[in-house]
Amino acid sequence: MIIQCVDGIQPKELENLCRQIAAFGLKVTEVKTQINFYLIALGSYEVDIRRIGSLFGVRDVHRVSDAYKLVSRKWKVAPTVIDLGDGVNIGTGDFSFMLGPCSLESEKQIESVAKFLVANGVRIMRGGAFKPRTSPYAFRGLGIEGLQMFADIARPMGLKLTTEIMDAAQIEAMYPYVDVFQVGTRNSQNFTLLDELGKIDKPVLLKRGMSGTIEELLQSAEYIFMKGNEQILLCERGIRTFEKSYRNTFDINAIPVLKEKTHLPVIVDPSHGVGIRRYVESIALAGVVAGADGAIIEIHETPEKAASDGDQTLNFDETEKLLKKARSVFQAVK
Amino acid sequence: MIIQCVDGIQPKELENLCRQIAAFGLKVTEVKTQINFYLIALGSYEVDIRRIGSLFGVRDVHRVSDAYKLVSRKWKVAPTVIDLGDGVNIGTGDFSFMLGPCSLESEKQIESVAKFLVANGVRIMRGGAFKPRTSPYAFRGLGIEGLQMFADIARPMGLKLTTEIMDAAQIEAMYPYVDVFQVGTRNSQNFTLLDELGKIDKPVLLKRGMSGTIEELLQSAEYIFMKGNEQILLCERGIRTFEKSYRNTFDINAIPVLKEKTHLPVIVDPSHGVGIRRYVESIALAGVVAGADGAIIEIHETPEKAASDGDQTLNFDETEKLLKKARSVFQAVK
Amino acid sequence: MIIQCVDGIQPKELENLCRQIAAFGLKVTEVKTQINFYLIALGSYEVDIRRIGSLFGVRDVHRVSDAYKLVSRKWKVAPTVIDLGDGVNIGTGDFSFMLGPCSLESEKQIESVAKFLVANGVRIMRGGAFKPRTSPYAFRGLGIEGLQMFADIARPMGLKLTTEIMDAAQIEAMYPYVDVFQVGTRNSQNFTLLDELGKIDKPVLLKRGMSGTIEELLQSAEYIFMKGNEQILLCERGIRTFEKSYRNTFDINAIPVLKEKTHLPVIVDPSHGVGIRRYVESIALAGVVAGADGAIIEIHETPEKAASDGDQTLNFDETEKLLKKARSVFQAVK
Amino acid sequence: MIIQCVDGIQPKELENLCRQIAAFGLKVTEVKTQINFYLIALGSYEVDIRRIGSLFGVRDVHRVSDAYKLVSRKWKVAPTVIDLGDGVNIGTGDFSFMLGPCSLESEKQIESVAKFLVANGVRIMRGGAFKPRTSPYAFRGLGIEGLQMFADIARPMGLKLTTEIMDAAQIEAMYPYVDVFQVGTRNSQNFTLLDELGKIDKPVLLKRGMSGTIEELLQSAEYIFMKGNEQILLCERGIRTFEKSYRNTFDINAIPVLKEKTHLPVIVDPSHGVGIRRYVESIALAGVVAGADGAIIEIHETPEKAASDGDQTLNFDETEKLLKKARSVFQAVK
Repeated sequence: MIIQCVDGIQPKELENLCRQIAAFGLKVTEVKTQINFYLIALGSYEVDIRRIGSLFGVRDVHRVSDAYKLVSRKWKVAPTVIDLGDGVNIGTGDFSFMLGPCSLESEKQIESVAKFLVANGVRIMRGGAFKPRTSPYAFRGLGIEGLQMFADIARPMGLKLTTEIMDAAQIEAMYPYVDVFQVGTRNSQNFTLLDELGKIDKPVLLKRGMSGTIEELLQSAEYIFMKGNEQILLCERGIRTFEKSYRNTFDINAIPVLKEKTHLPVIVDPSHGVGIRRYVESIALAGVVAGADGAIIEIHETPEKAASDGDQTLNFDETEKLLKKARSVFQAVK
Repeated sequence: MIIQCVDGIQPKELENLCRQIAAFGLKVTEVKTQINFYLIALGSYEVDIRRIGSLFGVRDVHRVSDAYKLVSRKWKVAPTVIDLGDGVNIGTGDFSFMLGPCSLESEKQIESVAKFLVANGVRIMRGGAFKPRTSPYAFRGLGIEGLQMFADIARPMGLKLTTEIMDAAQIEAMYPYVDVFQVGTRNSQNFTLLDELGKIDKPVLLKRGMSGTIEELLQSAEYIFMKGNEQILLCERGIRTFEKSYRNTFDINAIPVLKEKTHLPVIVDPSHGVGIRRYVESIALAGVVAGADGAIIEIHETPEKAASDGDQTLNFDETEKLLKKARSVFQAVK
Repeated sequence: MIIQCVDGIQPKELENLCRQIAAFGLKVTEVKTQINFYLIALGSYEVDIRRIGSLFGVRDVHRVSDAYKLVSRKWKVAPTVIDLGDGVNIGTGDFSFMLGPCSLESEKQIESVAKFLVANGVRIMRGGAFKPRTSPYAFRGLGIEGLQMFADIARPMGLKLTTEIMDAAQIEAMYPYVDVFQVGTRNSQNFTLLDELGKIDKPVLLKRGMSGTIEELLQSAEYIFMKGNEQILLCERGIRTFEKSYRNTFDINAIPVLKEKTHLPVIVDPSHGVGIRRYVESIALAGVVAGADGAIIEIHETPEKAASDGDQTLNFDETEKLLKKARSVFQAVK
Repeated sequence: MIIQCVDGIQPKELENLCRQIAAFGLKVTEVKTQINFYLIALGSYEVDIRRIGSLFGVRDVHRVSDAYKLVSRKWKVAPTVIDLGDGVNIGTGDFSFMLGPCSLESEKQIESVAKFLVANGVRIMRGGAFKPRTSPYAFRGLGIEGLQMFADIARPMGLKLTTEIMDAAQIEAMYPYVDVFQVGTRNSQNFTLLDELGKIDKPVLLKRGMSGTIEELLQSAEYIFMKGNEQILLCERGIRTFEKSYRNTFDINAIPVLKEKTHLPVIVDPSHGVGIRRYVESIALAGVVAGADGAIIEIHETPEKAASDGDQTLNFDETEKLLKKARSVFQAVK
């Protein structure tokens, strides 16, 4: 049960309210986000919701039978809009693109991508600086230096940056440069990291675990929300199955399921979702018509020379073709 | 290696040709379909293809490194068109719909669906008469009687029927009533059935096994083709994964992969692909933009009363809305 | 609900009894096996079982909440023993071995394996004559000829044969030569085949589908049982997962689960379960201690030269070592 | 390629050696563990290993074609022994038990388990203090306080503790109390955590990701090793599949595969591997005969009252029975 309190509730009144709710046999958790204040009451569902609703200090009450509460659409039907500033929003009903290289590599590379994005009306750039790699001997990214390059070159062009964070200890150093903190598939249940990202005031793009269920993804988002950060984007990036003719199995079903279950925006990652360059367009378009709010896609001027993930990266021509088709399809389905 | 012979090759000449090919250390399989005659030569890939091409009686030679040969696009780039007669074709570049109930139930039900299809410009009806059911105690279908009902009611309205066959022994009895023989997911590697369907002159819609790889699907199609039947449709209907919030995981990646690997038309089955009615539209649209040639979808006037699979069946209103969106999206992506 | 009738119940009495049960709102299915006669009553679980029990003609009643009924241990706790004649039994509390080549290849090969089995106290030989192969170009087995070779050579030595059947139409021709009919993983839900095997009086070894659930395996067994054949062996042979360092993932968990849920014997197939020769022994031993009733294992005098599956086939030395260890471990765990 | 240097190699000599190796076109990584010093040379495998072997300062050279190097058995065939002090070792050829509750709950609970372990000759206790929970509303463990309780009560009884660490920032606080740091399935590819655990001098028990491949598990171990810590235990704890009749699918195949591929000890976790109490014994015994070096199992005096995971926890009677059987089976297979 999610209980919203009246504005300006006094500490004494709140304490009193919590005691009354507890008297119904419910366990109360206070959740103070950057936007609102909630009480989460867990326990028997025999309690008559109207009796809670009539308590002093209560503005609204919603029964939420899901294991996740605050990210559920059962209490908040209106879609959450993520505001990145300077007029860049996600979840407004438009379709957002987040394009860029797997890894930030050099000033030259960042500039080439940034110019391409600006020319094509794309406002959000992706680019990894801290790369989780299966092998310890692989390229692990430029680190903070890469983020500084982005800030110097691409920010003045009006671009926002989404980049992966791998550990809570990196938040402070990354904070000045990052517009959206990405949590990768391998950290989808790194609860320490989720807790800490719940305490900051910048949006978090949370990727589904490579064998994470949709339910688990929503519970991981609940971690971030309940620590205070309501600005969360969910990302479907393919799951692990037995099929070997591509890298991951993009779970297209997850799009309508998530759009029904949560008020948070849903982003598709066709690059990792299929993992082979010549199939990326089809999967991206599928995401558009299935109801996603945006797509994060790996692009590079010369994918063959990319420092990582070149096999699933589009070149500029392919990207332009994709953008055109995606926009046309989005209009048709709206 | 696929070797196409010149028209009118004489038995003696053929025998001679096979002997010469075998002399290169290759194993020759003669494949006589209803349309063409091929020699499949397997063995060392060290053989210079030009030496085969210059043999008497050879019209063309194609190296095909896939395990499947005749269904590969490596030797036949042009898409295969399936002709159901009366102007009903699949694979011509248009998007085909095959709509109807999970099970044929009664004359009244068949008539109601048939009229709906005609009114909406759909030419192919689906409807099960022999139902594979996990439990032996479940409804197993009307059998031949159901097919006769269809023939009496829907054929005069210009509709074609696609229906599932479960055993080679049923071919003869079903043949007069069926336009497309469907092989269900559980029989995707029932090689005896595939062999026998290779000997008939009606199209076969082959569903992917519920944990079948794309490669296995193509090899199963090869069984049908090499016994003589080139009229094959491949169907993606969802695979089995760990995710529990829907019935199957529709493998959207399979669409572009199949379109690249084979010249056969690719059909999507969003009903089984997600298994929950309110998500079917999103998956169907995804199939359209990902490049499929058609969709097979379960519909019913009153899904709540359907004899089977009601949970994933659309009613007529939902179907009309879907048809409209699908056609609009198809135009946009073309 | 499973209702067992009194011996010698008269047709009139039975008809009367069925009418009375139906009056409770239950749907009655009569099941006449080669051993017993049962009534399966499906429907509301509100019915007081004692009222059914007191009807004339009823010997015993068991509530079975599982989707499968007759194969459940909820009504029959005592393990089913499979009797192959000549003192060869499976499911008696001992551990049974079924050893032999993937494919029967020649008289010489059959004789070499048969002698090895006799020398090592093994009474059941495995050997495929009809082989389901992913590719239509692969070796498909010797067919009936192979079975005749077995009958001529190995039967006089006291050996029993288990071999795969692929289609109901083969039953008649195979019947004289076969002691246990194997249903392969690809036919695990070939319901026509299961129905027909339910009508014969020889045991059936039913393999789990490669992505079949344990529940589906039991329901497939129910098909065979309810058509009249109670002599069923269930076989765990590995499932399909994402892991690529071996062929299939042997589901060791399935052994204790099946032993709890059903009264039928459970056989492990470590050869397909892991698919790599040098790991087969570990998996076989695991099956022994986890509670299986027997193992079916591929062996060959010279695995390197086997016509199929040589990579997962043990040679005679390896087999002897395995038999010794398995027997020692079986004693220790008993 | 793994290059071991001679003892007492001088900085200048090392620098010279690295330069010479690099001249072969190889990329050199220096790895200094708490025990040894290695050079990992990656690159073309055309280099003649003998030419490297003859360079000044080289003691031995091993070609390792796996993606992981230092954890491979290709250069170190002898099994690694983990020494916990006070005569407690893992990997010596004996079978080790690590038993205890899912969560440390209270002094009383710790004492009851500790006494049970001592009475049964078990030297290592498991017990969680920091619990990763899917839901943010679930019990998250006692934290450091729980570890202190263990140190006060169980250490004086001669017991060692293995407990889960969730974040690199916890190392310092946990270090005094922990004998084996456990990395849970959700952190199996938390590379920051792995890097930091590579810098400490206590053993790490690394669990396989819930959909992690065996190859990925070994690469994660490589992270720890190459940062300096050679004391690593690998743990198979079940993978995620489509099967729903138990919690996870214990991958018994992984045991012989890992024992072949790595010199590190392999531990089985039957509690999570199957997730249902009455099946745990079967899976544990399977692990013993498949070649594991030890088992980590959840036990509790009253599993019904456990703070977490009670459904998969054994009581003391069940544990005693299991210990007896496991020891008897281990003798039989040795």
